[in-house]
Amino acid sequence: MELSEIQHALRVFVAERDWGQFHTAENLAKSVSIESAELLECFQWTGDPATDVVAAELADVLTYCLLLSDRLGVDPLQIVADKLAVTARKYPVDVSRGSSQKYDRL
Amino acid sequence: MELSEIQHALRVFVAERDWGQFHTAENLAKSVSIESAELLECFQWTGDPATDVVAAELADVLTYCLLLSDRLGVDPLQIVADKLAVTARKYPVDVSRGSSQKYDRL
Amino acid sequence: MELSEIQHALRVFVAERDWGQFHTAENLAKSVSIESAELLECFQWTGDPATDVVAAELADVLTYCLLLSDRLGVDPLQIVADKLAVTARKYPVDVSRGSSQKYDRL
Amino acid sequence: MELSEIQHALRVFVAERDWGQFHTAENLAKSVSIESAELLECFQWTGDPATDVVAAELADVLTYCLLLSDRLGVDPLQIVADKLAVTARKYPVDVSRGSSQKYDRL
Repeated sequence: MELSEIQHALRVFVAERDWGQFHTAENLAKSVSIESAELLECFQWTGDPATDVVAAELADVLTYCLLLSDRLGVDPLQIVADKLAVTARKYPVDVSRGSSQKYDRL
Repeated sequence: MELSEIQHALRVFVAERDWGQFHTAENLAKSVSIESAELLECFQWTGDPATDVVAAELADVLTYCLLLSDRLGVDPLQIVADKLAVTARKYPVDVSRGSSQKYDRL
Repeated sequence: MELSEIQHALRVFVAERDWGQFHTAENLAKSVSIESAELLECFQWTGDPATDVVAAELADVLTYCLLLSDRLGVDPLQIVADKLAVTARKYPVDVSRGSSQKYDRL
Repeated sequence: MELSEIQHALRVFVAERDWGQFHTAENLAKSVSIESAELLECFQWTGDPATDVVAAELADVLTYCLLLSDRLGVDPLQIVADKLAVTARKYPVDVSRGSSQKYDRL
């Protein structure tokens, strides 16, 4: 499956239901947070929930991320690549290897 | 850019820094929530923040989503497609068109 | 210290800065989520962060909860007591003792 | 109602169910985030949800905040007062009046 295929399927899904009117960037950002918490809820009392349950919640987060990318008019893969370049500069390999400290404490 | 390219770049980034040890499914799920809130923070007092700022925060959410997909051993596009099929059944076009009600209130 | 004292101090703090204009219920609800994620960030990579750091982040969550109570016109202690009565009925002692299962799975 | 009364009621509620074993600081911090997202969900597609629905979700956030205060051994009102003093210094009245900018941009 290609990203463009799933993006197309999501756009059709939303258009058929006339839900674009609800999909302001702000509402989609709230939705990403709400779905992220449902993902986190899988781990509320355990570190080891069932993979299929976690995957289904992760899918909801990703879905709203893709819808928000669309609304912003950005390529979701490109923004990840761009941010990775920034993060790589903040966390040089030699000082960050094996450490979970934030860059401002390295 | 292909999804497989960015996935590869993320794996190299993590491996070079030996960060895989911190990337339990639970820690990644917490990270998705934390980054989602930073995305939401763009909209804390305004509905209209700068697109590049929002995109940079969205990129962080997507990054952790891709890392969690890897940890779970699932294809991020496939789980979105699978969930879309489930959601389509919960929200038939004829009853959900133009409505933001949850499926259990339609 | 009494709750009424800290509520009064918060109201003065907000009024002096003319920040009430930003404190819609929705903006305060977003703020509770944003601050909750900062609290969660203390635990992103460790289960044992410093207590004073955690307490300072918890204070931010509580602050926005008190401001939202004010905006809604509800007594924060009364709503906790009311909800506790509801929760007690959903989780009878005899079936929920020692279990972290949700009520619909008990 | 006094804070000490509701704190006592919460402690009895938890002890009767033997739930203290699940209430690590980390699990309670995750729970604060999860419940905050349920609060946010009231505002997912509308700025004007019913007050009693919002209050019930706010109560859940407050409940976990009080449980986390207990776990940390801190007074929830005192930490709010302490943080308010810090915030007052970061946001002097004369430069922050009427502005929703973060302190580092004032």
